[in-house]
Amino acid sequence: MAELYSEMTKEELLREKKQLKKRYDAFKARGLQLDMSRGKPGQDQLDLSTGIYDVRNYIADGIDVRNYGMLDGIPSCKKLFGDLLGVDAKNVIVGPNASLTLMFDYISQCYTHGAGSTPWCKLDEVKFLCPVPGYDRHFTICEHFGIQMINVPMKEDGPDMDVVEELIKDESVKGIFCVPKYSNPQGITYSDEIVERIAAMKPAAEDFRLIWDNAYCIHDLVEDGDELLNIFDVLPKYNNEDMVIEVCSTSKITFPGAGVSALIASENNLNAIRKRLNAQTISYDKMNQHRHVQFFGNADGVREHMKKHAKILKPKFDMVIDHLEKELGGRGIAKWVNPKGGYFISLDVMNGCAKRTGELCKEAGVTLTPVGATYPYGIDPNDSNIRIAPTFPPVSELNVAAELLCVCVRLACVEKLLG
Amino acid sequence: MAELYSEMTKEELLREKKQLKKRYDAFKARGLQLDMSRGKPGQDQLDLSTGIYDVRNYIADGIDVRNYGMLDGIPSCKKLFGDLLGVDAKNVIVGPNASLTLMFDYISQCYTHGAGSTPWCKLDEVKFLCPVPGYDRHFTICEHFGIQMINVPMKEDGPDMDVVEELIKDESVKGIFCVPKYSNPQGITYSDEIVERIAAMKPAAEDFRLIWDNAYCIHDLVEDGDELLNIFDVLPKYNNEDMVIEVCSTSKITFPGAGVSALIASENNLNAIRKRLNAQTISYDKMNQHRHVQFFGNADGVREHMKKHAKILKPKFDMVIDHLEKELGGRGIAKWVNPKGGYFISLDVMNGCAKRTGELCKEAGVTLTPVGATYPYGIDPNDSNIRIAPTFPPVSELNVAAELLCVCVRLACVEKLLG
Repeated sequence: MAELYSEMTKEELLREKKQLKKRYDAFKARGLQLDMSRGKPGQDQLDLSTGIYDVRNYIADGIDVRNYGMLDGIPSCKKLFGDLLGVDAKNVIVGPNASLTLMFDYISQCYTHGAGSTPWCKLDEVKFLCPVPGYDRHFTICEHFGIQMINVPMKEDGPDMDVVEELIKDESVKGIFCVPKYSNPQGITYSDEIVERIAAMKPAAEDFRLIWDNAYCIHDLVEDGDELLNIFDVLPKYNNEDMVIEVCSTSKITFPGAGVSALIASENNLNAIRKRLNAQTISYDKMNQHRHVQFFGNADGVREHMKKHAKILKPKFDMVIDHLEKELGGRGIAKWVNPKGGYFISLDVMNGCAKRTGELCKEAGVTLTPVGATYPYGIDPNDSNIRIAPTFPPVSELNVAAELLCVCVRLACVEKLLG
Repeated sequence: MAELYSEMTKEELLREKKQLKKRYDAFKARGLQLDMSRGKPGQDQLDLSTGIYDVRNYIADGIDVRNYGMLDGIPSCKKLFGDLLGVDAKNVIVGPNASLTLMFDYISQCYTHGAGSTPWCKLDEVKFLCPVPGYDRHFTICEHFGIQMINVPMKEDGPDMDVVEELIKDESVKGIFCVPKYSNPQGITYSDEIVERIAAMKPAAEDFRLIWDNAYCIHDLVEDGDELLNIFDVLPKYNNEDMVIEVCSTSKITFPGAGVSALIASENNLNAIRKRLNAQTISYDKMNQHRHVQFFGNADGVREHMKKHAKILKPKFDMVIDHLEKELGGRGIAKWVNPKGGYFISLDVMNGCAKRTGELCKEAGVTLTPVGATYPYGIDPNDSNIRIAPTFPPVSELNVAAELLCVCVRLACVEKLLG
């Protein structure tokens, strides 16, 4: 049994430090160059999808997809996303190569034209709620538009809704970013109760928008993955259909940067978006949409494909979790969730030790997501959260990187306790 | 020799009308469904590029293009566009599937964040100059952002610069849209003198932006195509590098909607754009960029490819011009330019007769670009301009459509003269 660091004497801590330092120096001497910073698929995952370029017919729904037209996506691709997300194809817009762009462009639209109300650029103050830890690129969008971010703590089953329900009484709170399934970085799937409470929100701002970033909607690592309640099934009960903009993409199904994204929304919201799209583009890449439909056949085809990804990814996640359990378990210095899907493992270390852990890792040649990035403005108030991205490195490298990370966490905590 | 309509007696006009009506009715009886409305490539043109999907290597400049990264484009594709446009690759951002999106997003950026000055959304009035006739989608962007458009007449060698130089003394005039080579719709290439005068502009607005939409930069129909002076070679002389944003794309080189776009700008402008891109996307479609580079090899490869397009398109343009000359020549009711490149033929008919011509065409089953679309707000003050898009219909259909169009023009003019 590992010993709680908090119960160690100074001498024991010093001994521990010495041992850890020795291991650390040995790692350092290897001149490693390992990267666990971003949720990138590994090369073997990318190889799963290159067959998509064998598609050689260009007629979709009777239309030559090589030419102009079909502003909001080809019908067959709308149907594919509709089937995957349990919504009607008519509520789907098929977008560009990244859902990030769909989100940015939508917030930009709210900023320039409003969401059925005053354009946000005409308001003195616009605030967004950000469940933390969260996805840094959501925060970047808010920062770009000068939207003030308010942290909302994540609980085990989703955002703290007591806090949310209080904060949305402020009319200048215009929205919230959520990753409801296998959340980035914690891998938490919102419970049915939380989804219901979210769908039932009555924000003071009429133009409040919930960005439902369903990035990991079918990204299970195990057979019995989490089930997320379909928020669009619940919204009508509360007359809240116009509150939610859902997005997803195939960035981690086929190719990051060469996939297809989709946006799901109410008729009202889609009309407002189409009005903007009509000025912004003639169509997105329909050939890519068509290739995706042809390659997968249907939603089941996509789900089967995801099992191949899981087969590659599960051992990587297991390996990191094993190291965490072995090195950090029982010492009272770290907590983590063992996710059933998604792309990350979120590690919370002793307060005040995350930055130092990152520094130690970097010195020894392992790049982590910058500590703090999982919080708005890059400020983790507890200096505690570390996002681990185990997908990209090959297993052999990951093995080294994960062990080294654990050594760094322990070292940082010992240093902290020694003061 | 055809007779001038203006010199015909009423009786002669009535006889002419009767003959034309007979021809028109014969066309109408055929139940035609022909489309000359948009600048779409024909199917045979699309077939020229499908070999691009044979590209099966995914390493560009040492990077796996299937994964995340490289925000502003892969170096080899920057170089390709740089070589085509005579600029340094470092001044190129490779963009999404359409230059329209690059333009919209840039104007949106100026609206939300300004162009080194006050965001345009914070100003009471923002105006843009629009050389007319022009490209409807430029106007749509302006309208979307509530930018007031001011018509500037096109002369034979570009926009009327006396008018432009006067209008830019107004500080609320923030920009101008130009299609400097084979302009849409007239096919006019700006003369060296005009480009020089444009480059030398000293607008009252410091944040004045010239959108240089070089959509037809290499889209010659003939061997001795027009030469456009490279504005980026001239700008330094006037310290005006930050004034110009140039865009282009392969929409009409490979595939509309599945091509690659590029933006050329000064270091200052590129930095401001990259800052926004960093929030808007992780990268554009690098696989498509890479495919384009591999398929063409280099800039000469693209130019050779364009000759194949020209071979398909030249007979279509010739056919339309033949009909125009035969039917409308010498009657004093229409003017047109015989362009050496681009995608359109611009036809100016007797004042007050363009709308009626469009109606007559439509009734007989030929769709034209909506009359008026070549002017801001869809209002052609003279009701005179018709944009002919001869590229999409097969030759046999075009032959019928062009003849019918001429009959409609003549009929509309006769009707007008008869009062």
